Amino acid sequence: MMYVVGHKNPDSDSICSAIALAYFLDAFPARLGELNPESQFILKRFGLMEPELIKTAKGKELFLVDHAEKSQNLDDFDKGKLIGIIDHHKIGISTTEPIIYLSKPVGSTASVISELYFRGILDIIGGKNKELKADIAGVLLSAILSDTLLFKSPTATPLDKELAEKLADIAGISDITAYGMEMLTAKSTVGKMTPEEILHIDYKPFDMSGKKVGIGQAEVIDMSEVASKKEAIQNLIDEMIEKEGYDMVLFLVTDIMKEGSEVLVAGNKSSFETAFELKLDGKSVFIDGLMSRKKQVVPPLEKYYSN
Amino acid sequence: MMYVVGHKNPDSDSICSAIALAYFLDAFPARLGELNPESQFILKRFGLMEPELIKTAKGKELFLVDHAEKSQNLDDFDKGKLIGIIDHHKIGISTTEPIIYLSKPVGSTASVISELYFRGILDIIGGKNKELKADIAGVLLSAILSDTLLFKSPTATPLDKELAEKLADIAGISDITAYGMEMLTAKSTVGKMTPEEILHIDYKPFDMSGKKVGIGQAEVIDMSEVASKKEAIQNLIDEMIEKEGYDMVLFLVTDIMKEGSEVLVAGNKSSFETAFELKLDGKSVFIDGLMSRKKQVVPPLEKYYSN
Repeated sequence: MMYVVGHKNPDSDSICSAIALAYFLDAFPARLGELNPESQFILKRFGLMEPELIKTAKGKELFLVDHAEKSQNLDDFDKGKLIGIIDHHKIGISTTEPIIYLSKPVGSTASVISELYFRGILDIIGGKNKELKADIAGVLLSAILSDTLLFKSPTATPLDKELAEKLADIAGISDITAYGMEMLTAKSTVGKMTPEEILHIDYKPFDMSGKKVGIGQAEVIDMSEVASKKEAIQNLIDEMIEKEGYDMVLFLVTDIMKEGSEVLVAGNKSSFETAFELKLDGKSVFIDGLMSRKKQVVPPLEKYYSN
Repeated sequence: MMYVVGHKNPDSDSICSAIALAYFLDAFPARLGELNPESQFILKRFGLMEPELIKTAKGKELFLVDHAEKSQNLDDFDKGKLIGIIDHHKIGISTTEPIIYLSKPVGSTASVISELYFRGILDIIGGKNKELKADIAGVLLSAILSDTLLFKSPTATPLDKELAEKLADIAGISDITAYGMEMLTAKSTVGKMTPEEILHIDYKPFDMSGKKVGIGQAEVIDMSEVASKKEAIQNLIDEMIEKEGYDMVLFLVTDIMKEGSEVLVAGNKSSFETAFELKLDGKSVFIDGLMSRKKQVVPPLEKYYSN
């Protein structure tokens, strides 16, 4: 049986894209971890069930969404059979056989799936051109809004916006911005979370030229939500450097309204400074315009570590 | 400026797909090596020019066809900017940024491009839905026939055949099989080639879990074409083991009509025997039904070397 699954520490794009693509592929939607508050809000809003939590790849056919890196999937990933990937990230996986792979540099995986739907070409990746119902349209819309931070992220493209408008029509959402703010506010229950929970809202480990690098991100509507917890988060990532074999761990507190991120740095400070061409005063820095881990944080680090 | 380019030691799919995709992308078709006799026959038959030979990636935007491995592209590949990949092979590349990637487990890269054309969806990979002229249809058809060995290869799918029939209509080819045999016969000038030339008709180096493995393939309509040159080819691949740091080099003489391949083995014999679960009597073995390097040779070797 085939499972459509997003990455570990799933964000809304991983959850919503798994649900939508599984619908078109007649497969099971799955997840590799707990839902964040935003994803919980979205599924409740559109009356959909949580994807099934899976713990092993053994005996499963897998169709990945929203990632193309083994380290972001199950530890026994190789025990499963990889059928395909729909994604919008860099390529970080190798296979021993040809698979279905469609990736585009757009704002979300949900955008890639939605484009296939609106063009009536889901069959090119093995899906069926079934009718899109309001609930599936709603989760796809939500995933686009979430991953593009209401189209403010540098990863957002005109296509994302165009697709979101069509999805909103089907989902019965008349004011996209109002819905998006409602969703982002639901996400920003950061204020009630413990530092550990905040760190793991959206945390991803990367293998960069053999070095282990971790990057977490939390998005807030107002920095004050996390102000009192920053020191504790810094201590947690410092501890990861000491105990978990990381070379560098970064934590981004992204202020959606100010359109920038405070970056907490653990590990080799001078590596960070070289990669980002700046000087740290202490252990953190606010970088104006920095919104996207994928587009603005991973590439300079990959480049730095490969040299 | 953007160049569409196939792999080193280009086969007809690499050459024809580069020409066709460059047409739809308004880019330049390029090649990384000399045309084999089959590709020469195809371009002459449809009156098209050879793609430009390029020797550096510096300053170029690159769109890859028919491969997704750096080792099969230019040595200074990283100096170029990778824009996208259209392919039907395994994934063996990693990137630092998201790119356009479309790969499907079908018989040829030309099939993937043709499907985009007939569906009118070339724009999903950044192309234009221009009219397909007879010459471009002809080279796409030829690439499908070449890569699927007239649909006899285990990599061939019903889609390849369906697309080939539509392309034949546009190209003005009334009898696909007759044209295919004519093309394969043109390819089989193997009899007039030197052992060195035969070895390099379609030779690819692979990085398998850090070990260097080479696999060459020549397709013949009759084994007698190469009978007198097998010993010399064996000597050449034995020499590559000694001098070029290879762990294993294989050379496949594929008999299209008998639907099987004689495999010449150089390097660690017992590794080959373990990977293919057979016993070698001497340095070569005929394997019935073995037609595809990609589907039947690379996967067991990748699996063997990863253990």
